[in-house]
Amino acid sequence: MKIPQGFNFAAVNAGVKSPEATRLDMGLIVCSKSAEAVAFFTRNKVKAAPVQIGMLQAAHGRVRAVLANSGNANACTGEKGIDDAQRLMCCVADNLGISPEEVFPMSTGVIGVKLPVERMLAKIPELAKSLGEDPQVFVDSIMTTDTFAKTASRQVGLATVFGLAKGAGMIAPNMATMLALVLTDASLTRTELDGAVRGCLEKTFNAITVDGDTSTNDTLLVLASNCIEVEKAAVIEAIQDVMQELAIKVVSDGEGATKLITITVTGATNDEDAARVARSVADSLLVKTALFGQDPNWGRIMCAIGNSGVKIVEQAIAIHVAGMPFVLDGKEAPGFDEQHGHAVLEPREVAIDIDLGLGKGTFRVWTTDMSYKYVEINAAYRT
Amino acid sequence: MKIPQGFNFAAVNAGVKSPEATRLDMGLIVCSKSAEAVAFFTRNKVKAAPVQIGMLQAAHGRVRAVLANSGNANACTGEKGIDDAQRLMCCVADNLGISPEEVFPMSTGVIGVKLPVERMLAKIPELAKSLGEDPQVFVDSIMTTDTFAKTASRQVGLATVFGLAKGAGMIAPNMATMLALVLTDASLTRTELDGAVRGCLEKTFNAITVDGDTSTNDTLLVLASNCIEVEKAAVIEAIQDVMQELAIKVVSDGEGATKLITITVTGATNDEDAARVARSVADSLLVKTALFGQDPNWGRIMCAIGNSGVKIVEQAIAIHVAGMPFVLDGKEAPGFDEQHGHAVLEPREVAIDIDLGLGKGTFRVWTTDMSYKYVEINAAYRT
Repeated sequence: MKIPQGFNFAAVNAGVKSPEATRLDMGLIVCSKSAEAVAFFTRNKVKAAPVQIGMLQAAHGRVRAVLANSGNANACTGEKGIDDAQRLMCCVADNLGISPEEVFPMSTGVIGVKLPVERMLAKIPELAKSLGEDPQVFVDSIMTTDTFAKTASRQVGLATVFGLAKGAGMIAPNMATMLALVLTDASLTRTELDGAVRGCLEKTFNAITVDGDTSTNDTLLVLASNCIEVEKAAVIEAIQDVMQELAIKVVSDGEGATKLITITVTGATNDEDAARVARSVADSLLVKTALFGQDPNWGRIMCAIGNSGVKIVEQAIAIHVAGMPFVLDGKEAPGFDEQHGHAVLEPREVAIDIDLGLGKGTFRVWTTDMSYKYVEINAAYRT
Repeated sequence: MKIPQGFNFAAVNAGVKSPEATRLDMGLIVCSKSAEAVAFFTRNKVKAAPVQIGMLQAAHGRVRAVLANSGNANACTGEKGIDDAQRLMCCVADNLGISPEEVFPMSTGVIGVKLPVERMLAKIPELAKSLGEDPQVFVDSIMTTDTFAKTASRQVGLATVFGLAKGAGMIAPNMATMLALVLTDASLTRTELDGAVRGCLEKTFNAITVDGDTSTNDTLLVLASNCIEVEKAAVIEAIQDVMQELAIKVVSDGEGATKLITITVTGATNDEDAARVARSVADSLLVKTALFGQDPNWGRIMCAIGNSGVKIVEQAIAIHVAGMPFVLDGKEAPGFDEQHGHAVLEPREVAIDIDLGLGKGTFRVWTTDMSYKYVEINAAYRT
């Protein structure tokens, strides 16, 4: 996988979660010159310290370094949390000879625990000295309950767009990933970068859901190092492709997921209604547990459609699962067979197509099933 | 438990779910004279056939008989579902010598499967002949995944208020039980009955949630046989007490529940905001799985508060769990101890008190934790 020019990566173990932890848990990305930056953040009204700081950083739009950690969200930590993040940013800036305002912070992990800032500060010189071209160490350092690293890349002539993300739980519409970065060496102005990301955010990171919870830390940062001149439209398309690929990878690694479910709603009065229906179905526990059990219980899909609150005409609804008609005219499709319905739910990837039969509104979301493993992971996450 | 005068009960096995089933699955209640009736229904826009019919019945306000079944919701069954329900109502009416419009239908069970109406019709004569004073057979006949029968009663002088309900899954705010009945022999006009129920519906059946899904069949029917004159205010209070007791019993028997959680929000800008915060916390899977794991992970409660969408000031929030301060001023409470926090989560009943510190708005909801068992029940419910 080619990496865009102008970016270097490092990671260390800083004992973020506990002094005994041995895994990589603090990562650094450095841009050889100040990069154009755009960032988008969680819509949760409780925002982690790094999100509060990042929102200010993003306003001035230029970033030289990204400091990220897993194992601790630095959320609900009050002024101490802000101070801690700023001390880390200053330390990184000192070690790199840049300004603290050019250091962009990201954290992921448990909410409400203070950062072990002294342990982290002690490791920053080592972090700054170990920069190299391989992004894998950085990707590893931000993983929590992720079972695989999520990366994606596209080439546009000599330029590269490279994305990485961590996800897993607290994945819901509205910045549905905890941390994601997209890096490119192509030349783009900040306005172009912003337009590229806004143009697909609703249909990518804001269209995935694992458990309906939006975290306190969700952050998407997109950086352009402006090293290579290539056709702008092609770069923008590549950025959007990378965002979609990352979004799908994040949801397909949702905590405990055994299935990747694509829900496409058509025939809604408008796109907003389609999105509400798609999300109501995607977040229904009864739908998700039925999918885990490969139970073709389409009544639960109808129930979730009815719970979305949007205008529907029950008799106009059609539901196809993996191409097989489950519901026509709001009732069981003629010839529907439960054994066959069970069989089409066996593959890991399942498409649910819902036609509301009313208008031209459409929306697609990606979600997962709900398994014992989700409960296990989240009942035993901390204690 | 005393039963109000003027009501008789019966139940049979009609093989509703399958011809091999042996359990009681069709029940009948008959009033010795036409009772004043008020009914409230699911807000799901997909409404089962018996709900569509019941809404018309309720409009004229007088009921002589209630015909209920478990094992099949008669939902998403189109015109055939309406026809089936009406055939059953006519058959009951014929057997009892009353009008079909006085027979109130209720169904609960799987969505989207046609009623085995011939099997059911064949059993109605036996049902009508076996009426007696013990309501237990009726209660048994409407249970699905319920692990215990939910009943409650109060005396007001010589009059009695008796309630029964079935619940378990698809329990969410807005008529958060599938089927509930409250019967009284006290004299009340329909207007008084309606006022009594409306006066507490929001704080009882609409204030419980297991999984955030509102079913297609939720129905609350309240009947007054007008046999006994007693003080009206005392009867109204008794009806409201019975509704609250039933609501709490329904949620405490939520599918797979190991805990009954009472979430009280105070200090909101208004009651509506308080309700939104309470429901956001109650429906958060991450909160519910943490409670199952007895993990005092208060950050997830803060996250769910932030996701409610209402105005909050993070620094003003206080959270007490079982009386122990977990969060003060939006941060970990001084002296918070994880082991102690774990210990206070051990009992079956846990109170979470959230003070938003902004105004006088308040709301209380009851919910459950989320266990492996919930997934097991719902992944294996049908196939």
